[in-house]
Order: sequence, then structure tokens, then C-alpha cells
Amino acid sequence: MVGRAIAMDLVHDHSVTSFDLDATNLEKLKQDDPRIQTVAADLSHFDEYPNWLTTFDTVVTAVPGFMGYKTLEAVINSGKDVVDISFFPEDALQLDKLAKQKNVTAITDCGVAPGMSNFIIGRYNEEMKITSVECYVGGLPASPQAPFFYKAPFSPVDVIQEYLRPARLVENGVVVTRPALSEKEIIYFDEVGELEAFNTDGLRSLIFTMNHIPDMKEKTLRYPGHADLIIAMKQAGFFDIAPLRIEEKDISPLDFTSKLLVNQWKLNEGEEEFTVMRVTARAKNKTIEYNLLDRYDKTTNTSSMARTTGYTCTAAVNLIAKKMFQEKGVFPPELVGKDKTCFEFVVDYLKSRNVVWKKSGS
Amino acid sequence: MVGRAIAMDLVHDHSVTSFDLDATNLEKLKQDDPRIQTVAADLSHFDEYPNWLTTFDTVVTAVPGFMGYKTLEAVINSGKDVVDISFFPEDALQLDKLAKQKNVTAITDCGVAPGMSNFIIGRYNEEMKITSVECYVGGLPASPQAPFFYKAPFSPVDVIQEYLRPARLVENGVVVTRPALSEKEIIYFDEVGELEAFNTDGLRSLIFTMNHIPDMKEKTLRYPGHADLIIAMKQAGFFDIAPLRIEEKDISPLDFTSKLLVNQWKLNEGEEEFTVMRVTARAKNKTIEYNLLDRYDKTTNTSSMARTTGYTCTAAVNLIAKKMFQEKGVFPPELVGKDKTCFEFVVDYLKSRNVVWKKSGS
Repeated sequence: MVGRAIAMDLVHDHSVTSFDLDATNLEKLKQDDPRIQTVAADLSHFDEYPNWLTTFDTVVTAVPGFMGYKTLEAVINSGKDVVDISFFPEDALQLDKLAKQKNVTAITDCGVAPGMSNFIIGRYNEEMKITSVECYVGGLPASPQAPFFYKAPFSPVDVIQEYLRPARLVENGVVVTRPALSEKEIIYFDEVGELEAFNTDGLRSLIFTMNHIPDMKEKTLRYPGHADLIIAMKQAGFFDIAPLRIEEKDISPLDFTSKLLVNQWKLNEGEEEFTVMRVTARAKNKTIEYNLLDRYDKTTNTSSMARTTGYTCTAAVNLIAKKMFQEKGVFPPELVGKDKTCFEFVVDYLKSRNVVWKKSGS
Repeated sequence: MVGRAIAMDLVHDHSVTSFDLDATNLEKLKQDDPRIQTVAADLSHFDEYPNWLTTFDTVVTAVPGFMGYKTLEAVINSGKDVVDISFFPEDALQLDKLAKQKNVTAITDCGVAPGMSNFIIGRYNEEMKITSVECYVGGLPASPQAPFFYKAPFSPVDVIQEYLRPARLVENGVVVTRPALSEKEIIYFDEVGELEAFNTDGLRSLIFTMNHIPDMKEKTLRYPGHADLIIAMKQAGFFDIAPLRIEEKDISPLDFTSKLLVNQWKLNEGEEEFTVMRVTARAKNKTIEYNLLDRYDKTTNTSSMARTTGYTCTAAVNLIAKKMFQEKGVFPPELVGKDKTCFEFVVDYLKSRNVVWKKSGS
């Protein structure tokens, strides 16, 4: 989904080749824009990367999280500059040394959140002594329906994993861990109304790169009622991994529930969704706030999730292509955003695609 | 569970024989009171009833609902007086003609609710022109735990079926059907606090025998929060019958959920529970209210559910044994309770076992 938006955006100014395991996906992509070249390939054959990538200048990696780290490693090993949005659980900075050796620029976690939030924090960290950072983000259906008031652009099991993984936040300079879905609060957003916000493990690289900021938290936004139902289901055991014996089969409640929620949480063809996000950086006498409200694009049938994630990624590709960012190594976006020209380029790039970040604060 | 309480109560004044499929259950019962005779038998062999029942005066039928009607029919066919608490879905009054032919007294639905509520309505229907009837009843754990705040003395699937079956109530003289769990309200009960009440299909025979009363409703009581979670799970499809394909098996979400809830809803050995109930009958210038709060009996390890259901049943057995109720045919308790002596006997019988109904009103 996001890969399509990325390819269709880049092909306006670049020669683009998309790789995918599924030839049908590639066929559809060619129909959307015949200029896009395609290669059907199993991207888990990491030893083939040097051959596959020879003719390219820059690579975008947008693969399932479980194979993200190895994919990024293989691209760096091939000596190609790369922007990654695979959001894998491993620490990308462990590839920093390899990237420097290979003379490669790698920008990681370069979507909307993580991604744009990191650019903003990185930028204002240069301007002021930040004392606290808050990031609120949600991707939500335009017409929410009971009981979850939610649709997932990803597989339900990936969303549920986010709800099970303990959330790390920073308080008074110390990394603390809270249960996912904890510290629920209600926040008002223009044009959207009241949403609930709760802890999820979204700070990622900021915990390490911005470890001088004493307070940082990231919270996920949902329509009110979602978190309580998820918590109740968790308590009731519907997300348990230990199997239940039924019909002579061992079936994990998590697997069963994930399967059952596929239909509940599936965005229908053309169903409208939106991204709402607020990033706040506070210093002693100054507060900077960036707000985003981005909606499904009916004309190109592109989800807001794909737009906000994909166009942040393509902005970074252009930073590399235009030689605006030439440092070698692995860089989460906060280390790119510290450069004012780079940051403003990304914001303008998004704005020209109608992904409009509104800055306020004083 | 209820059968044990019934046998142990009746054996004080009568010669008692308990039938069960499971010899282990019977062995435990004999340990509890060696005076109880036992017969291990498959009670679905209805043609054997005449042989089995020859030597008995009165029979109590307390079998799973699905085989309740046929069991009652077989007992009546054997020419034995009977009190039934099997709560089967069929209409027991269809056996009225057979019971009259066989010269049998059959008192049906003779537990706490249905049962005691029917006795009360039947009684006051003789005293005043009832304009409305309300019955609130719940069996609840003494230490409720999130997320359901509930434990079931029955199999979860039986409770869920109650939550799926449309509820019939009477409004302005017309039988109307509402979804189960609808019209939730919060009601305060002494010593218990606030509980939620919602529609369930509990009026049963009253809909027909009391069809001159213009307004009647029966609601189930739970700790607040229970109904919303059940409704959400229903909406999410966790009670769907149509199977989901998983691990090459077709598994019904209802089966899976029922299985998962067995552990969640199981009363632990010795876990305290209670029964709370309120029956209100209104006439133009008069309101009669009966309240019950009955608790788990630690000394005999008898649940309140077994006490309130079982002792109402044994009271009726004694009405027959003492020839206080001698009419022939099938009688739901409202048709027995219209007799003041019978009604007062039942109330006193329960009181002597510390199941105390408190009457109020004017």
C-alpha cells in the first residue's frame, strides 16, 4: 500500500523500479503508472541484492517488519544509499559502522510516526533547550463503527502486538516502562473532535539520540471506547498466546482473535480514513506545536496512511538525490532534521502534496 | 449442583434416591449424606422410566435444558407427581392434558427465577388488579473481577445463549420483543450497591397465564460494565455461529469464546456468590415488593444459586407430599401460588432455610 504511493510519487522525477514477491501487485502498479518498471522477486534472498541493485542510485526499503533489518543490511552491503520505512524491532544504529564503511547514506524510520515526528524534534533541538516532547498520532476511519471505532491499514495482529508491547517513555531523564494502553486521556482535535490517547512504544530512536531531553512520550490516538474494549479483551484472555484445545486442535486465542478481527478492521475499497497527529516540543519559555490532519485522497485512491508515510519517505529520497543530505552512516530522521534546509525541504515537499503541517507556538 | 442441594434438603424428611449418569457425582453425594440412595443411569432412556420410578411417590427433574421436556413427559407418562427445574425451551403446558389423563400433579419452572417470582405474581394477582410486574434477578460473585465482573454457575455457552435470545416483554397488553441486553438501567440494592439491569427472556409462562396484566418485564442483574462488554463482543462477532477457518479447521466463534470463558467465569472451589432479586407488583393504589439477598453457605458449601433454586423446588415437593396442592395437570408456580396457604408455606419453608424474602409496600 505505501510502496505504491512511494513509487507513483517518485516516478514523476526519477526512473523507478519496484520489486515485489507478488506479480499481481506489480501488474496493478504498472496499470496505475506505466512508467514504473517492475521486478517480481523474493526479497528474502539477501545474497542476490548486489546483482539486483547494481544499476540503481538509491533504494527505498518498505518490507514487513520481521525482515526489515536484514533487508536494510543487505542494501547497505550493496553500497547503495537507502531510505527505510520497514519499522523493524531491531536497532538500526547497529548498522551505522557498516554504512560508514560502505560509504552509504541510510535514513531509517522515515515515515510519519516514526518519521516526521523525529524530523520536528531534531530541528527544534537545534533551536532551543527542549524540556519535554509529546507525540500524539492516529490513523482512523472517517466513519467509525461500534464496537472498536477503528479500521487497520495493517494486519490486526500487528496492531494487537502494538497493544501488547510495553511502552517506553522518558520521565525526569529516566526511561520508564508502562503497559501499552495505559494513562488514557481525552484530547480534542479540530475537525475531528475528542479522541483518546494512550501509551504505546513509539519513541524508538529518540530515546537514545535525544537522551538529554528529560521528558518524552508517544501516544496513540483512537476514538473513545477503543482502549477500554482492547483492555477488557486482553484481561479476558483473547490475546493470550498459550493455545486453547478445541476440536482436537491447539489454537492460540491471539491467532483466533486476529483472524476474527480481519473483517471487523478491514478498510473497505475506497473507504475514507485520515491521519491526525500533534507533535509538541517545550522549552522553558517556548512551546512549538506541529499539527497534521490529512485525509484519504479520492482522486488517486491513496490512503492518508500511505500519503503521510510515503511522501515523508520520498522527501528523504530527494534529500539524498539532490545531495542535500550527504552524511554517511545510519540516520534516524531527527539527525537529518537538525539541518534547517533539509527540514524545510521535507515540510515543503509534503505541503506540495497537500500533506500540510501547521506550525504554532511561541 | 442444584440436585445435590435438593437431595440433601429432602432427605431430612423423606426417603430420597438420586439418579445421575455420573457415578462419581453420586459417590460424592453419598459422602455428603449416606442416607441418600443412588442409581447411576442414563436418564435419556425415557422408555425405562416406568421401571425406574415404580417405588417412588414424587419425582424431581433437574436435567440439562435440552432434554428437560422429554424427561418431564416421561415422568408424567409413568404416572408420578413431579416438580421440574430443568428450564427447557418448550412450553410445558402442552403436557397439561397428558398430566390430567395420568392423574399427575406437575409443578414446572419451580426454581428462584423462574419460580419464586411466579409464586409471588400468582399470589398478588388474587389480591389486587395488577397493572405492572417487574422482576430483577442476578446471581453474582462476591468478589467481582475485571473485565466481566461475573462468574457463571452454569456453562458459559448457556449464559451467552441467554444474551443472544430475544427478550419478550409485555407493554400495554402487547407482547413485544427486544434484543437481549437492551434497555440497560442502574439500580441500587442494599448491601450490594449499584447493579445494571437489562432485558432477558425470563417471563416464560407468565406471558400466557397472566395475559391480563398490561405491563410485565424481567431483567437480569450484573455488576456495571458487564453488558457493554458483552454487547461489544457480540458486535465484534465473538458469538457468531458461522465458523471461521483456522488451522485447517472450521471453528465457530461462539464455541471458541465459550471455551475461552470457561476459565474466566468459573466459580472457584468455595468461592462466595450471592443471589439478589426484586419482584414488584403494582396496582392502581398499591405496590408490593419482595426482595431477596441470599449468600453462599460456607458451613454446607452450598452455593446461593443452589439454595434459592433448590429450596423453592423442595418446598413444592412438600406441597405435594403434604397434599396441600392436589390439582392435576401442569402448573407453573403462579398457578400454585394463587393459593394463600401454599404461598405462605413456600415462603416459610425458604425462611427456615435462611432464604429470606422481605416483603414491603403499601
